Amino acid sequence: MLLHLDAAARRTSFSRKLSRTFAEAWRQADPEASYVYRDLAADPVPHIGEAWTELCDHVLAHGITDISRYKEAVRTAEHAAAWAVVEPLLGELVAAKTVLIGVPMYNYGVPSSLKAWLDQVTFPRMSLKGRTFVIAGARGGAYGPGAPKEPFDHHERYLRDFIQGHFAVEDVTFVHAELTNSLVDPALAHLRAAHEESYAAALALAGKAATR
Amino acid sequence: MLLHLDAAARRTSFSRKLSRTFAEAWRQADPEASYVYRDLAADPVPHIGEAWTELCDHVLAHGITDISRYKEAVRTAEHAAAWAVVEPLLGELVAAKTVLIGVPMYNYGVPSSLKAWLDQVTFPRMSLKGRTFVIAGARGGAYGPGAPKEPFDHHERYLRDFIQGHFAVEDVTFVHAELTNSLVDPALAHLRAAHEESYAAALALAGKAATR
Repeated sequence: MLLHLDAAARRTSFSRKLSRTFAEAWRQADPEASYVYRDLAADPVPHIGEAWTELCDHVLAHGITDISRYKEAVRTAEHAAAWAVVEPLLGELVAAKTVLIGVPMYNYGVPSSLKAWLDQVTFPRMSLKGRTFVIAGARGGAYGPGAPKEPFDHHERYLRDFIQGHFAVEDVTFVHAELTNSLVDPALAHLRAAHEESYAAALALAGKAATR
Repeated sequence: MLLHLDAAARRTSFSRKLSRTFAEAWRQADPEASYVYRDLAADPVPHIGEAWTELCDHVLAHGITDISRYKEAVRTAEHAAAWAVVEPLLGELVAAKTVLIGVPMYNYGVPSSLKAWLDQVTFPRMSLKGRTFVIAGARGGAYGPGAPKEPFDHHERYLRDFIQGHFAVEDVTFVHAELTNSLVDPALAHLRAAHEESYAAALALAGKAATR
């Protein structure tokens, strides 16, 4: 199963175009496989609340690492309400073999819409080992290896550290369209060709990653 | 003016206790100064939407860096609605001499509730030079210099890079209560004394930072 998430505020964002390219190639390669789509911008997930933290504390205090046992933490009506938000999100994440996330960089990091989802579905010592993650990103500037702003990349670097470090997922692929601000900011107009090149390369990579 | 934000899902979180300690000492030292409090968990800010990105594009395309001119970007009813969310948040941020943020680490990063605020108030090349930022943090583990999980600190490191790098603010102070999970996780019980020590040191630092 492919779980496809998009987090961009823009309906026509580059990250959405890239994630769609991957999803279409993936589905074409395996038309029988199931596919779940969730738009975290159009249909936002709430921030975690007090009751969610109590679910998490219970899981931590009782050393529960089996995801199918998390619901044991529900002891009050507030817990049940918090769990009702988590359960479908977590269910489709666990069911996925491939998780595809279309996610632009906002202010050096990931959009709040994606972080809200991540905070909802993440529990202590939770393993998603064996799954594949594909991140289809877009960034206003250049943040890749050697770029002056590379140290400010809390987008790919954060997602890589989190997906590998917390979810124990080894197979994480990133494709980014960079310098998207060159299309809007006159001061960056000289970088439009570099943006086009970056976007074309990302599109090609996204298609290739889906069928490898 | 002191702008005091809290982002923790827990009403009794360590980050809230630390930020309150700073705020109380600050207000005691200067009882005449104005004080604005905003609870980003209890009263969440929406994620930025399509209309917000159009405001941002306009500011970028027209090279507008003067914050008081941002409202020129409002050209449609959707823009006006997006701006109505931004205006009070940005107004109190710009008016503040000191910005105090109580913010726990969630999943190596900042809570989605804080990122939603940050995404709403941040525009291209926006300077908040001359202001002081104080971050009152809490982390489940240890992420300080030399800790095994230091590389996974996308909490302090992210906020430092963003506040210094984008807002051009030089004066940023962090105080953290670490190892808070030791109070819940039996596997970390041996670290409770280290947590107590970290929390006591953070409380003392928060009080001192407010009156320096």
